[in-house]
Amino acid sequence: MKRLFFLINFSFLISHFSFGASVLSPNGNIELKFSLSEFGQPVYEVTYKNRPVIKPSHLGLELAKDKHASMGMREHDLLEGFTIAKEETTTFDETWRPVWGETATIRNHYNEYAVTLSQKWLDRLPSNPDGPRLAPRQYNRTMIIRFRVYDDGVGFRYEFPQQRDLTYFLIKEEKSEFAMAGDHVAWWLPGDYDTQEQETQQTRLSEIRDRFKKAVNWTNSSVAVFSETGVQTSLQMKSDDGLYINIHEAACQDYATMHLNLDDKTLVFTSWLTPDATGLKGCMQTPCETPWRTIMVSDDARDMLSSNLILNLNEPCKIEDTSWIHPTKYCGVWWEMIVGKSSWNYTDEFPSIKLDQIDWTKVKPNGRHAANNEKVKRYIDFAAKNGLDQVLVEGWNVGWEDWANHWKRDVFDFVTPYPDFDLKMLNDYAHSKGVKLMMHHETSSSTQNYERHIKEAFELMNKYGYDAVKTGYVGDIIPRGDFHYSQSMNNHYLYVIKEAAKHHVMVNSHEATRPTGLCRTYPNLVGGESARGTEYEAFGGSNPDHTCILPFTRLQGGPMDYTPGIFVTRLSEWSDNTSWARITLAGSLALYLTMYSPLQMAADLPENYEKFDDAFQFIRDVAVDWDDSRYLEAEPADYITVARKAKGTDNWFIGGKCDENGHKSVIKLDFLDKGRKYDCTIYADAKDAHYEKNPQAYTITKRVVKAGDVLKVNEAPGGGFAVSLIAK
Amino acid sequence: MKRLFFLINFSFLISHFSFGASVLSPNGNIELKFSLSEFGQPVYEVTYKNRPVIKPSHLGLELAKDKHASMGMREHDLLEGFTIAKEETTTFDETWRPVWGETATIRNHYNEYAVTLSQKWLDRLPSNPDGPRLAPRQYNRTMIIRFRVYDDGVGFRYEFPQQRDLTYFLIKEEKSEFAMAGDHVAWWLPGDYDTQEQETQQTRLSEIRDRFKKAVNWTNSSVAVFSETGVQTSLQMKSDDGLYINIHEAACQDYATMHLNLDDKTLVFTSWLTPDATGLKGCMQTPCETPWRTIMVSDDARDMLSSNLILNLNEPCKIEDTSWIHPTKYCGVWWEMIVGKSSWNYTDEFPSIKLDQIDWTKVKPNGRHAANNEKVKRYIDFAAKNGLDQVLVEGWNVGWEDWANHWKRDVFDFVTPYPDFDLKMLNDYAHSKGVKLMMHHETSSSTQNYERHIKEAFELMNKYGYDAVKTGYVGDIIPRGDFHYSQSMNNHYLYVIKEAAKHHVMVNSHEATRPTGLCRTYPNLVGGESARGTEYEAFGGSNPDHTCILPFTRLQGGPMDYTPGIFVTRLSEWSDNTSWARITLAGSLALYLTMYSPLQMAADLPENYEKFDDAFQFIRDVAVDWDDSRYLEAEPADYITVARKAKGTDNWFIGGKCDENGHKSVIKLDFLDKGRKYDCTIYADAKDAHYEKNPQAYTITKRVVKAGDVLKVNEAPGGGFAVSLIAK
Repeated sequence: MKRLFFLINFSFLISHFSFGASVLSPNGNIELKFSLSEFGQPVYEVTYKNRPVIKPSHLGLELAKDKHASMGMREHDLLEGFTIAKEETTTFDETWRPVWGETATIRNHYNEYAVTLSQKWLDRLPSNPDGPRLAPRQYNRTMIIRFRVYDDGVGFRYEFPQQRDLTYFLIKEEKSEFAMAGDHVAWWLPGDYDTQEQETQQTRLSEIRDRFKKAVNWTNSSVAVFSETGVQTSLQMKSDDGLYINIHEAACQDYATMHLNLDDKTLVFTSWLTPDATGLKGCMQTPCETPWRTIMVSDDARDMLSSNLILNLNEPCKIEDTSWIHPTKYCGVWWEMIVGKSSWNYTDEFPSIKLDQIDWTKVKPNGRHAANNEKVKRYIDFAAKNGLDQVLVEGWNVGWEDWANHWKRDVFDFVTPYPDFDLKMLNDYAHSKGVKLMMHHETSSSTQNYERHIKEAFELMNKYGYDAVKTGYVGDIIPRGDFHYSQSMNNHYLYVIKEAAKHHVMVNSHEATRPTGLCRTYPNLVGGESARGTEYEAFGGSNPDHTCILPFTRLQGGPMDYTPGIFVTRLSEWSDNTSWARITLAGSLALYLTMYSPLQMAADLPENYEKFDDAFQFIRDVAVDWDDSRYLEAEPADYITVARKAKGTDNWFIGGKCDENGHKSVIKLDFLDKGRKYDCTIYADAKDAHYEKNPQAYTITKRVVKAGDVLKVNEAPGGGFAVSLIAK
Repeated sequence: MKRLFFLINFSFLISHFSFGASVLSPNGNIELKFSLSEFGQPVYEVTYKNRPVIKPSHLGLELAKDKHASMGMREHDLLEGFTIAKEETTTFDETWRPVWGETATIRNHYNEYAVTLSQKWLDRLPSNPDGPRLAPRQYNRTMIIRFRVYDDGVGFRYEFPQQRDLTYFLIKEEKSEFAMAGDHVAWWLPGDYDTQEQETQQTRLSEIRDRFKKAVNWTNSSVAVFSETGVQTSLQMKSDDGLYINIHEAACQDYATMHLNLDDKTLVFTSWLTPDATGLKGCMQTPCETPWRTIMVSDDARDMLSSNLILNLNEPCKIEDTSWIHPTKYCGVWWEMIVGKSSWNYTDEFPSIKLDQIDWTKVKPNGRHAANNEKVKRYIDFAAKNGLDQVLVEGWNVGWEDWANHWKRDVFDFVTPYPDFDLKMLNDYAHSKGVKLMMHHETSSSTQNYERHIKEAFELMNKYGYDAVKTGYVGDIIPRGDFHYSQSMNNHYLYVIKEAAKHHVMVNSHEATRPTGLCRTYPNLVGGESARGTEYEAFGGSNPDHTCILPFTRLQGGPMDYTPGIFVTRLSEWSDNTSWARITLAGSLALYLTMYSPLQMAADLPENYEKFDDAFQFIRDVAVDWDDSRYLEAEPADYITVARKAKGTDNWFIGGKCDENGHKSVIKLDFLDKGRKYDCTIYADAKDAHYEKNPQAYTITKRVVKAGDVLKVNEAPGGGFAVSLIAK
């Protein structure tokens, strides 16, 4: 290892190497170079329009010693001593149709470079120290590094073919480097094995260390940071010369989630995987491969948002019949518990409960249980009246009395409702009104318990007609010592998605690992949380620019169930909660466009929407699935404006969202059908609107527009706007 | 903690305390004393006929800090500062009928002393360090220590009622002391979190440390020792004044398995629990209790074997309909793989396999796969012909190619047979002959994988008519970092037993935690391994006295699937294996009596039994369930002689087994029905028999006997005898 660090610290040495291979993106803007160092280390480099994006950086993996090691399973790192056995360059161009998405079709066009590396060495077999000394034998291992060079970035991964000298191996650390070409501005979250619900930090790379401690909110239910320069992906950066660079990963399956650890002297990031309970970072069996490591780059911020690079690097859909998967607009019995006005639990009678020891019909209700028949019926009525597809009900099932942070394994059974929740009646009632209930499975991170019950849980859903589940992973993982983003947990999340698919159930996974585009392969993964969602507006609030960052970071891997739509931002207006949402009402409408998801919640209370029914019309109208999307304006943490064409129609919707500084949006309607007229309704911030002082000041204006017209809309501080364009 | 250690090191201090309570066993031989020390530490003491068994010893638990600690959940050990809040002394006398067992009825007769201890202290609530300083509040916790004093020993446990100041808590270590009154001879296994398959050591307590390293066989698949004076339970000891003392535990459910760590200066054992992956030893939720800690004592070694103390301390049967649970005699496709003549796996074609990527009909067979249709049919024929109930088949299901020691999670699916094993045909064939197949679920210790498949696995068994499963846990536990005997694994084993019961499946669990009498509560747990079984005769052999120790140790907690019956002890006679079994043929027959189990295997190959068909007659005849059992002679590691009356008959069977020194057995048949005659067949070692030099020399003599007659039988070195007494 000494040699490796030597090279990192004196990186001018690397630049001396003659690069063996060079691959251009289809449009020629991006160039990838690959070579081996004099020590046989893999080295790559990326440029964009001849400007450095990734300076020469090493690739490889450090392996861990296996206590069961036997023949061919010695600890021998996959870092150096390689020779090139084979090189292949190919081109791929295909257009595919997502089951749901921002566009009807997606083009997957790249030039690929796959280099087969050979690592040979002479070594003795492990033998009994008292036995005869064995003759050394030749080891020969093969590792492929595959690069795909797109117009919007580069992906690469390690592949390990099945082979005698590499069957099972343990990863101590993946050592993929990303050497930055400058002290970029970065939008980052503290690297953490358990949470990604912190506020995003905006600093230069060199400032991460100083900001780190302040960046961690230690009151989160699980915090597991590992380095003062450790950050999460997707990491969005901007260089001083105007390059937008984003590092993330694609197709993370049965592998630990990757973080990045920065050497802030050299500005080199190195991959940092999430460990298991023993500190180990991966158990691998060949043939296998790592997830793709992705580097998106452009000189136009809008390209960061419209990129499909991560989806394209995932495998095609593996679910044959996808007819049961559908975009969904929903409301739910949820916000009032988050805010603290009502409770998930049914009783306050016991200091703790054991599921098999309680007769729920005999316990004393606390009078605050939200998921009761009467209330759920009101929500069903509201959904039916307003064209919402589903009603989420949290707290319907027994176990919420002591569900979190007790290392309690058998916390829920996922099938037993509280006595005031009539499972059959409520589903029948919903179905009679054309609405479905949405299931909720909070696991309290007791994954063993969830896996034990999952089959009965999905069978119950099938029996009563649920077709979507919101899962939750609050708190520390059981089995104890494991982390939310470890290999085993990533395997668990995918296990749940696959089991759900067998039962034709869509999954919206909260507190799970950040997505990496697996929704292409398993499109029943319709949403997820994995970031700081709207709930934090009830826990002290999020910065006004928060939703202008998330599309650049969290949303790269897949849609987020952000649960937008808070109209009454001062929670004290209807509760004892003194927190308030940092957004204007018009800004809330914009999120249905700027925060792309096939699953969109109208998160506020029905009675709050009824007070602003004219604005709520936009939520009634807005589509959740799209034939086309055009990012019109974008700058990380400042503003995002996007126009989307509703699936199977000629109607367009536009949303614009800005940070605390406001934004003047100028929208040229050149994407509309030529010669056609559209009824245009603009929901905008009023002149005096302000996310703090006057959030509910909005205007609704209607006009008729045509292609080529220009809309000028002023967004207030922390505000935004929404437009519907209905083809006449 | 300093105070505690002070007291341990200067134990004369303890002896000064005046004991507050004294409880006698029903017959008055055993006395238990309990008091609190001047520091409020619980202290107990046990005597037998006024001779010290347990000298004054502390009781309590050390708690771990919970990262989620909030109100009422501070770290505050349950070790000292107690006052006595309440004392209760009661008497219990009940006779119950086990579903299967050594006797038709079992008397549960004890005097009980339950002391409710109160622990109060003033402390501040944990609060925000920057916030206002909160006033201290009074904490008040309650712990009950319950002692049951039997004629054959003492059991005690800790109980934690539901209470405000003790809801959830974490155990750093249980600190139950067992202060020995002398430097006893002990039969011990090295304390280990993962294996109990070592050879038993016989040393004085003071010699444990010196013997420890030699006692550990590091080539076992999992070895996790923790202290050079750490030993396992059940621990059998013998004092210089002839007291037999045994320490074990009863009813270990959802709690870590207990080891004992010896302070070899003071001869005080302290409990040492098995940790989880993070080092923690227990996650508890009140109301709850620990397992019982058991101390059996007598001046007659036979009482160690006839004791039902551990069963009595378990809860009554929780399975309502037990009609499907039955004692079972079986043979199996097993020994030939253990010996190495054939293989569990079907192919040698791949360095590793992935279950979902192999078309098994297309792979190249290795020609050594034992679980094939032809062979299994031969075993079925053999079982049918000889009155054996079932045929175990190992290696029937795909995945054996790389099943062990690779940290492979998805190693088996438990439902897919190899192509040469016709699941339906073979079960139909067996059933047509009145025989059942016995299922085999090797988990490779990947418990997560087993739990994911267990429902389908049991459904498959139900579909094809299996009613018994042998489970296996070879190798290190997945999730990684966990141990075989941890709280979570003990929960897993019980989860499997409960799921099996739902499907009317009997369980025989190999490599699982050592039993603690749970078979009373869940009698579908018909057997287990959890010790060095017959398989080791193929791995270098076990000492001839091994089976004269196991009934004193391993069998205290429940029956063992020892798989006796090896007739051809020189394995090289039919294989390339140079190992040999340290037992005579007649000794092998004895094990069907001396190693009590409702599940007994005839483990050798059918062709080996056919060579000794006259001796095999005993295995055909011997019962596996009993109305009565009389231990006639016993001395640990020397000899055991037992007579048992077959269930529902007047027939008796007698077995005698001895160590390498031989034994002369004199058996007075005073247990036979007066005035009745019995056909007596004696299977004995021939005069020149010897476990090494002449193991297959045996005699079979027949006579007619009556009550009061005396049988004199010579047991050869490493030999034994078996007798059948059929009522005329």
